[in-house]
Amino acid sequence: MPLLVMKFGGTSVATLDRIRRAAKRVGVEVAKGYDVIVIVSAMSGKTNELVGWVKETSPLFDAREYDAVVSSGEQVTAGLMALTLQEMDVPARSWQGWQVPVQTTSAHSAARIEDIQTENINGKFAEGMRVAVVAGFQGVSPEGRITTLGRGGSDTTAVAFAAAFGAERCDIYTDVDGVYTTDPRISSKARKLDRIAFEEMLELASLGAKVLQTRSVELAMRYKVKLRVLSSFDEQTDTSGTLVCDEEEIMESNVVAGVAYSRDEAKMTLISVADRPGIAAAIFGPLSESGVNVDMIVQNISEDGRTDMTFSLPTDQVARAEKAMEDAKTSGSINYHDLVTDTDVAKVSVVGIGMRSHTGVAAKMFAALNAEGINIKVITTSEIKVSVLIDRKYMELAVQALHDAFELEKVA
Amino acid sequence: MPLLVMKFGGTSVATLDRIRRAAKRVGVEVAKGYDVIVIVSAMSGKTNELVGWVKETSPLFDAREYDAVVSSGEQVTAGLMALTLQEMDVPARSWQGWQVPVQTTSAHSAARIEDIQTENINGKFAEGMRVAVVAGFQGVSPEGRITTLGRGGSDTTAVAFAAAFGAERCDIYTDVDGVYTTDPRISSKARKLDRIAFEEMLELASLGAKVLQTRSVELAMRYKVKLRVLSSFDEQTDTSGTLVCDEEEIMESNVVAGVAYSRDEAKMTLISVADRPGIAAAIFGPLSESGVNVDMIVQNISEDGRTDMTFSLPTDQVARAEKAMEDAKTSGSINYHDLVTDTDVAKVSVVGIGMRSHTGVAAKMFAALNAEGINIKVITTSEIKVSVLIDRKYMELAVQALHDAFELEKVA
Repeated sequence: MPLLVMKFGGTSVATLDRIRRAAKRVGVEVAKGYDVIVIVSAMSGKTNELVGWVKETSPLFDAREYDAVVSSGEQVTAGLMALTLQEMDVPARSWQGWQVPVQTTSAHSAARIEDIQTENINGKFAEGMRVAVVAGFQGVSPEGRITTLGRGGSDTTAVAFAAAFGAERCDIYTDVDGVYTTDPRISSKARKLDRIAFEEMLELASLGAKVLQTRSVELAMRYKVKLRVLSSFDEQTDTSGTLVCDEEEIMESNVVAGVAYSRDEAKMTLISVADRPGIAAAIFGPLSESGVNVDMIVQNISEDGRTDMTFSLPTDQVARAEKAMEDAKTSGSINYHDLVTDTDVAKVSVVGIGMRSHTGVAAKMFAALNAEGINIKVITTSEIKVSVLIDRKYMELAVQALHDAFELEKVA
Repeated sequence: MPLLVMKFGGTSVATLDRIRRAAKRVGVEVAKGYDVIVIVSAMSGKTNELVGWVKETSPLFDAREYDAVVSSGEQVTAGLMALTLQEMDVPARSWQGWQVPVQTTSAHSAARIEDIQTENINGKFAEGMRVAVVAGFQGVSPEGRITTLGRGGSDTTAVAFAAAFGAERCDIYTDVDGVYTTDPRISSKARKLDRIAFEEMLELASLGAKVLQTRSVELAMRYKVKLRVLSSFDEQTDTSGTLVCDEEEIMESNVVAGVAYSRDEAKMTLISVADRPGIAAAIFGPLSESGVNVDMIVQNISEDGRTDMTFSLPTDQVARAEKAMEDAKTSGSINYHDLVTDTDVAKVSVVGIGMRSHTGVAAKMFAALNAEGINIKVITTSEIKVSVLIDRKYMELAVQALHDAFELEKVA
């Protein structure tokens, strides 16, 4: 029988009523003739409660015990979902990570899936089971201990199952009804996309459109798993939600798929750094070791053997970055005249695979921002993305202006 | 190193603070040089919440899914207890039933332990681990699914581990400080027993002194596991609590160890039943099939081929028993003139292994009750127990009178 993977996030299984609603969605697919693997998250709020207990007990906790405690949330939802399906006369049973088994690395609380054994579950499908309910976010280490994949890991579980079992599609049920051209709270003209390419989704996800976990999109792209994002709170049709798929499956599309933003950005500039071979490593090595996630990097033209180095980073990592730079200066590994920090910036990006074959996207973007009098502080470009750092107070205005300039409210 | 098993019930691990207090008790034993296996229950209230969700989802639930959901409570406590011990620099880790593994039958939600593998845990002790924290109440079936042992099963887990690992003692930490000669709420003269024989504890437990689960006492008796019941809320010394042990280890003891009672008793009498071979089976067969737990049975002397049959049962099973008897009469399998039900009775018992070698206990009991004007409705005796059914309104008076008559406030 054809197989679907359906994943329900925490808000979609937050109460027994919502579990029942989700189970009905599963029942619809079973009635169509699909065998279904359901991946469930913990009931909304549960994981936070469990994590809170662990951290209160042991601030520098043993991640193996953290995983044992925190994985219990998905275990409960899986059992309750299986019971709900059984009440609807759908043959179902629950599986925990170690029962499948989902083999992972031993990197507790941030493990990676290494292998999913399909024999046990496929055996039960062959015996007439129609739905395997699997606890998301968890697996088992080579040492036989429970592991978790890190927050949001249930998306990754879902995609990995879809790849391992050769599912026709992986439906991710969440509290939004799809991927939009931009945040509808910022532009009322934002339009739901019917389809988006994996690469575009990756850029949008890592830029802060928190619909899908980045790793799950990477995995889907590698194994060509068709991902559909849709709302568990709306009535569904076959064209509901947004399909995240290979670009070849997208016939017509705008050059730009969407406008993304990130509010919590800061900009740091090292003024007058000695410009010598290895200077970039001397700056960004210590930052990386301090756990600072540097995003954009711009180096000015060198004058008299000295240059300015500018980079962006999350606002809450500024103090750590400043300390790392001062320590590096004290130790003599780098030398600079001044360190200037600007915590009032935001990043705005336009993303689209069409940019590969169309020129002029960056120019159009700069013109649109200029027309609104918005000054650009830093620019970076990739094959399918142009990002700019601007004053935070202009962020909403910039997003609206770019959405209008690229006419994203219209279907191509 | 010598080994202890320490079990903490739900009220002893109800909050992170109480888990910390329990961990301190464990630390004391580790400091004395013991390796310790800690068995934990779910945090107080947790199991009820999970059971509630299961029953709301599916009134006639699949017991395999029930077990998957309900066992998560102990899993959480085990992880938190291990983390707490680690914070105290005690090398500890958690184990779930399937990780030990604790092999059980497939009788989900009422499974029996078949085998406990000691290799994994002993291997960790050999590597320097001092405390293995094991989730109580759970195991794994031959099919690889999580099983639970039924309510109160953590006591049984503790005794089974003590037997399997040859522990020096099994300490059961609970919210009472030991076993008393009778309920202190009924007689202010009730005295904590330093020691009690397994057989006596079994009679007291099954009569409603809910300190230890009956199965755990049976198991301790079979494997000669020394059980100590003590409070997790008091400061402890080596003579705290009550030791439940082999009668040979009790040097001096009263003839009667304690007075037990059970409030929720009912009495039913079938008036004028045809007294023929097989009549007992014809009455008690249908009752058993209806799930009625008959306790005491008395048959009057037969007159003219007819007799009266009286039996006691829990009050909440009266309706079921009446229906079973009426159905049996309708079907013609039994015949009686009348069915008389008395739901206002209570059972009071005196228990003691000393009764084996001392005569006159029953006579003394009846005299004491008679002196208070209490009428006895039904009497049953066993080797170490005499029980009577009386009007419920006299129950407290009877317990006090018997406690006085056998001078249980005094140590032998």
